[in-house]
This record gives sequence, C-alpha cells and structure tokens, in this order.
Amino acid sequence: MTRSPRIDCLQYANWSEKIFRQMRSGGVDAVHVTIAYHENFRETVHNIERWNRWFEQFPELIFQGRTGDDVRLAQATGRTAIFFGFQNPSPIEDDIGLVEIVHTLGGRFMQLTYNNQSLLATGCYEAEDTGITRMGRQVIKEMNRVGLVVDMSHSAERSTLEAIDISERPIAITHANPASWHPALRNKSDDVLRALGQSGGMLGFSVYPHHLKGGSNCSLESFCEMIARTADLMGPDHIGIGTDLCQDQPDTIVEWMRVGRWTKEIDYGEGSSGNPGFPEMPSWFHDNRDFENIEARLRVAGFDAAGVAAIMGGNWLQFYDRSFGSQNAGKSSDQTEAAQ
Amino acid sequence: MTRSPRIDCLQYANWSEKIFRQMRSGGVDAVHVTIAYHENFRETVHNIERWNRWFEQFPELIFQGRTGDDVRLAQATGRTAIFFGFQNPSPIEDDIGLVEIVHTLGGRFMQLTYNNQSLLATGCYEAEDTGITRMGRQVIKEMNRVGLVVDMSHSAERSTLEAIDISERPIAITHANPASWHPALRNKSDDVLRALGQSGGMLGFSVYPHHLKGGSNCSLESFCEMIARTADLMGPDHIGIGTDLCQDQPDTIVEWMRVGRWTKEIDYGEGSSGNPGFPEMPSWFHDNRDFENIEARLRVAGFDAAGVAAIMGGNWLQFYDRSFGSQNAGKSSDQTEAAQ
Repeated sequence: MTRSPRIDCLQYANWSEKIFRQMRSGGVDAVHVTIAYHENFRETVHNIERWNRWFEQFPELIFQGRTGDDVRLAQATGRTAIFFGFQNPSPIEDDIGLVEIVHTLGGRFMQLTYNNQSLLATGCYEAEDTGITRMGRQVIKEMNRVGLVVDMSHSAERSTLEAIDISERPIAITHANPASWHPALRNKSDDVLRALGQSGGMLGFSVYPHHLKGGSNCSLESFCEMIARTADLMGPDHIGIGTDLCQDQPDTIVEWMRVGRWTKEIDYGEGSSGNPGFPEMPSWFHDNRDFENIEARLRVAGFDAAGVAAIMGGNWLQFYDRSFGSQNAGKSSDQTEAAQ
Repeated sequence: MTRSPRIDCLQYANWSEKIFRQMRSGGVDAVHVTIAYHENFRETVHNIERWNRWFEQFPELIFQGRTGDDVRLAQATGRTAIFFGFQNPSPIEDDIGLVEIVHTLGGRFMQLTYNNQSLLATGCYEAEDTGITRMGRQVIKEMNRVGLVVDMSHSAERSTLEAIDISERPIAITHANPASWHPALRNKSDDVLRALGQSGGMLGFSVYPHHLKGGSNCSLESFCEMIARTADLMGPDHIGIGTDLCQDQPDTIVEWMRVGRWTKEIDYGEGSSGNPGFPEMPSWFHDNRDFENIEARLRVAGFDAAGVAAIMGGNWLQFYDRSFGSQNAGKSSDQTEAAQ
C-alpha cells in the first residue's frame, strides 16, 4: 500500500448517500460511526439493520469494516469501511454475554459511560467518580478477550485512569482534546493523556466546537498547534482524528444524545439554555471533504509528511490491527480463531 | 482431505461436555444444532451466548462453524464444528432485517414453520395449508441473499412444494423420512422428495422414533433399506443424516417443543396422552458414537464406500459449501463479500 489511510475515528451524522459520497470525495478510507447512544440491545440491532440496508444499497461507496485489513481493502477498492461503535454500554444491558454478541455483529468500540454513571464506570458529568465498578472490571476483561475497544471519551478522570490500568489491551479516547488547551469537562487532563500514551492507547482529536478553544471560532492554526503539543505529551504514535462530526442532524438528536430516557427534565450537556442545539462548526471543517484542510495545516505546525500521515490515519490503522481480533489470536493454544 | 466428513444435520441435545466428547469419540465432524424452537430474537441471542460459553470452555472439542471449510478445519484439528439453526422463524419475529442479523450471528438453517401456521408458511399439523405467505416470499428471498438455508422439516405439503419452487437456492429438509415408508405427518411424500432432489435440495434422515417404521423397534436393516429406496427416488447426492437426536433432554423439553407459548392446553404433537414424553431411541442409535452402526449397515444395503461416505457427510458438505455464503459471492459486481 503506497498511500497511508485517512481514518476518522468518530462520526455520528444523519447518514445519507450525500454523506457517503462526501466520504469518497474526501478520500476517507474508514469511519468509526456511532450506532448507539442510549439504545438497548434490540434497538442497537435495529440500527445495525439500517446500516445493512445502506451497505446493500451503496456497495460501491461503503461496506462494513471488521479488521484493519478492511481499511486496506477500502483503499484498494475506492470505498469507505464503516466500523460500528457505541457511546454507552446500553447495548449490552446488564448481560456480559452480549459483549461477544455485539462484537460478532461488528461493534469495535464501546464507551463505558456516556456522561452519567453507568453499570460499568462514572461519566464526566457526575459529581463523584467512584471508578470502575465490579461489573465494569468483568466487562473490560471480556472486551479485551473478544476485541471490543474500551473508549473513555465521555468518562470521568478516575474511571478513565482505572480503565487504562485495568484493561490488558490499550484503550482509546476516540473524540476529545486536551483540557490544558480548552478546559471543557469532556476534554482530558495531561495525566490521563500521558497515561493513555504510555499504555499504547490512542486519542482522536475532536472538532466538535464545544471541545475547541474559542468554540466555533477556533482557528485551524490553534487546533493544529494543540495537536503538535499533544504529540510531544503523548508521543507521535498515539494520536489521530475523531472529529465527532454530527452532520445534518436536527437538534432533536442532540437532545436525545444528552437526555436519552434517563430524565424527564431537559439537560443541556455541553450546551446551555441559550445555546441548546448543535453548535456551528468551525469554518475549516464542515464535512468529510475538509480533512485536507487539517492535513495541510499540520505541515505548517511542524509535522513532516510521515508524521501527518500517521495522524490522519496511519496510527489508527496500527491500532485497529492490534485491537479488533481475539486476544488469543495467534496463540497456538487457540485454534478457534482460525475458524472465523 | 483424505477422509469424507461425518455430519449430523440436526440435533437438539441437552448439551454437556459428555456429549461433546461423544461427538469426538464418534468422529462427528459437524453438527447442525437447534438453538431455537419458539424463542424470540432476544431469547435466541441468549441461547447463542450459552453456546459462546461452551466454545470458550471446550475449544479442544468444539467451535462455531460458519462455512463448509469449517467442516474441513474440524477434520484437520480433531474437533466438531457446530452450526446453528432454528426450527421456527420466531427468532426473526416480524422483522425481515433480522434475517441478516441472525446469519451474521451464525444461523445457517431456519424452518419456515414448526408444526403450526407461522408468519411465513403453514406447518404440517394445520388442517389447511395456504402455502407461502406474502412475508414468506420476502423472507425466502432475503434468506437466499444472505445464505440462510430454508428448512421445511416441519412444514405442510403445499408450503414445502412452494418453498422449493420460490427459493432461488436449494432448500433442505434436515430431519424427516419418506411417508411412503412410515406415514407420519412429519414424514414427506414422494412428490416432495422428488421435487427436493430435482431442485438440488437435501434430505436428512431422522432416527427420531416417531419418524421410524415400527417406532423405537425399527430395525437398522429397515432404516438402511429405506435410505436405499430414497436414493433411487431423489438421487444419491441429495441425501444425508439429520438424526433429530434429543439426547439427555427431560420430558419438559418435548412439551416446550410442542406447546411453546401458543396454547394453554397440552398438545401431544407426535406423541399421545399415553406416550407424552420423548420416545425410547432404537437400539442401534443412542448417541454420537453410534453413527458407525448406520455406516456399516449401509454397505449391506448395497451402497459402495463412496456412496456411504456421501450419505454420512459428503453430500451435506457439498451443500454447505454452496449454501452458506452470500448469494452474490464471487460475482464481480459484489465486492462487499470480499471484505467479510
């Protein structure tokens, strides 16, 4: 493969043929798409059914990704590999057996929390963070076994540090930025980012305005300089892109993301009563055709071509290669994997 | 591969390490196991979770089979490949999107009915047989597309003939015998068997006593002569074994199989008020170690070694090779399959 892949490790768009064509126009080889916020198992399966219809309708644009090699297949065939993820453990309900089931169905990332306390860990909006729960430890072990990546993007500090420590395989924070650059609750401390990098984990940089210094007015220059500083902090091999692009979504969706079914009151999450909807995107990133803006500016921020390629997808591909298979794959004691 | 495989295309045992070890002792390379009678989707997933635990606990004995090549892998590694099937369309509920989902989870056979009328077709115990329903036609098409085999073992005559006709890929009757040999409601007419063979389908011979001439007292000689006559009727490439072995099951299970949740009254199915439980197995077949009895007797019934090998598993393997992949696999227009 001559070209390094372009991978976005988090989007939650209002999917359409238009967006799939923009992925192709933008040369995006793989996207990790959120298919559940608060959905239970059966509802998540329904969302997979919707994706199956899109895969059937647009086979020349997209297909379901399951392994790192599917990113290479996407590059070779001029399509985009779609990897499923969950922003909450709601798809596995209270049933550890569902971890393997959702992995078989293509799930590759699962957040242990979405803002609130879950059965597994504490979310970043809770007042108290009690760390990984009893069930959380069991589920992390099972996620490690089958190859479902622990994602702590919306989790609280202690829970995140404990997940890094407990997990036997590197974890990810697919979409967040350093809090030292922009002190949002959703952004991460240098302690977390350092531990993430040292453990072989990955951070995906978000362009969701609430995660950006200056919000919607954040400059591309500031964003890319932040990436350069984070490379110094974490190491250049542990960073990538996870835009958190919520393209074409109506504001009812951001309300669903924040409120789910857990409250009868309105919760504004990262927004506010004066700004309850999706924030306006920065001028330099509106859709999948805008990755080249980031790529070009990273050179100005001091990265060489290889460094830019690593950030734009090369690092994620290495992580995908290591993370999505069974933990025992390749060990001679495990012959089952060969049957898959 | 020097040895032809030994395949049993229907069992519903009270699974245990003992039975898995008997599969190995009996040289059984692959078994199609029933994982749903009346279970809805979520309940079926729970049953898959139980199998996942067994695969994890006994990797030296069993693993999940998905393709014909997994039968060859089983032969090469001295294990038994387990293929999932449903005796009712209850796992897909009223949702055609679940056809692909259950196939992704490993489902390879699905009966369109279990004795009663279903959303898809008419069962063999109904007074009137109205054939394949509107939804049934759509589901057969979808089953053809993804590689989920239509199984009409418990279906009525007209529905079965229509399924053979409508399905674009050969179907199976995994566990039944000719009604001309033993006129049970569950056994099949010569018309059905002839149409099945001519369409490239497969019949699996059952050793469940209610399907046998003379019941539990049926002789192995009579059983093997029946196979020889059926080979003449259908062609020697369209027959195999589907024992319907229900080993170690308590009688509460046969009640569940017959009654499910569809009636508050008792229904004896193939049994009777005087004989409500599982019937006693014939002396020559009690468990997975007894296939050699059938194999040896088939030679006496006139089959040569190649003919016996075809019946004991070779024919099923050819059918598995043709049936479990996507309908479009290998067509240049479909590149998605290559990604799987």
